[in-house]
Amino acid sequence: MAHRVPTGDNRERFVCDACGTIHYQNPKIVTGCLPIYGEQVLLCKRAIQPRQGLWTLPAGFLENGETSTQGAARETFEEACANVSIEGLYTIFNLPHISQVYMFFRASLLDLDFRPGFESTDVRLFHERDIPWQDLAFPVVRDTLEHYFRDRASGAFPVHVGDIIYEKR
Amino acid sequence: MAHRVPTGDNRERFVCDACGTIHYQNPKIVTGCLPIYGEQVLLCKRAIQPRQGLWTLPAGFLENGETSTQGAARETFEEACANVSIEGLYTIFNLPHISQVYMFFRASLLDLDFRPGFESTDVRLFHERDIPWQDLAFPVVRDTLEHYFRDRASGAFPVHVGDIIYEKR
Repeated sequence: MAHRVPTGDNRERFVCDACGTIHYQNPKIVTGCLPIYGEQVLLCKRAIQPRQGLWTLPAGFLENGETSTQGAARETFEEACANVSIEGLYTIFNLPHISQVYMFFRASLLDLDFRPGFESTDVRLFHERDIPWQDLAFPVVRDTLEHYFRDRASGAFPVHVGDIIYEKR
Repeated sequence: MAHRVPTGDNRERFVCDACGTIHYQNPKIVTGCLPIYGEQVLLCKRAIQPRQGLWTLPAGFLENGETSTQGAARETFEEACANVSIEGLYTIFNLPHISQVYMFFRASLLDLDFRPGFESTDVRLFHERDIPWQDLAFPVVRDTLEHYFRDRASGAFPVHVGDIIYEKR
């Protein structure tokens, strides 16, 4: 496998010298939910790295053949065994330093029959006053929760787009 | 390269039997612009397959290390040599049958110094009445234009999310 600019392109790609196949690498989508139950939101305590032991919204890589909405519901079931009804797209974050785009959907938690999936050690509902702000796993989780509690006061939930920019060290 | 379910996973992946590397394949993001100049919108006539000769909004695959907004402006410059100022995210479409997620941004065309890039044979501004509806390249282009002309009448441009679903034949 060589790393060079293919003919007609302007970026270096991984090219197989044996068969000529160009193995493009592009940003991945992470899709997830903000599960809401009355006044409370559902968070998962991470069983795995990175950010093991910190609290997150259920989310993971979108898979081939599914919509971002389907992926968000699937990840919510995998991480929290929680059944949700997706209400609408809510936040999108560009994370160019790791070539990811996050998408969170507002979702109604349909029942209280949730429990930790394989990637979680705990799953709980939190009122706004009890959110573990100092123990959230990722900036995208904090930003999504902050948007939500602010928007909830007004009753309107427009889509928010943000960039999470880290300088290269 | 084998195609099997890795330990701890639940989907088949391409796994290198020599080094154990798992080559994940995930949906790609296509990012682009709806360039607006007064009452007109900019469209590009495709020089390449698929849909060669049909009209499209400038868009292409998001690259590693860039934000979806940066990618939208880059593609607009590559396909139409057009300088735009991004106004905001406007439409998102899931295309699960080809594992793509499209994102279009509303953008102001900054000047009339545009011309076809390598992937276009023509670039033009269109009033609503002149849009070549029968010669648009993709459903996501038609849907984005339809949303725009409808929203323009009301003056509000919320984010629209849609699924483009094709049954497997």
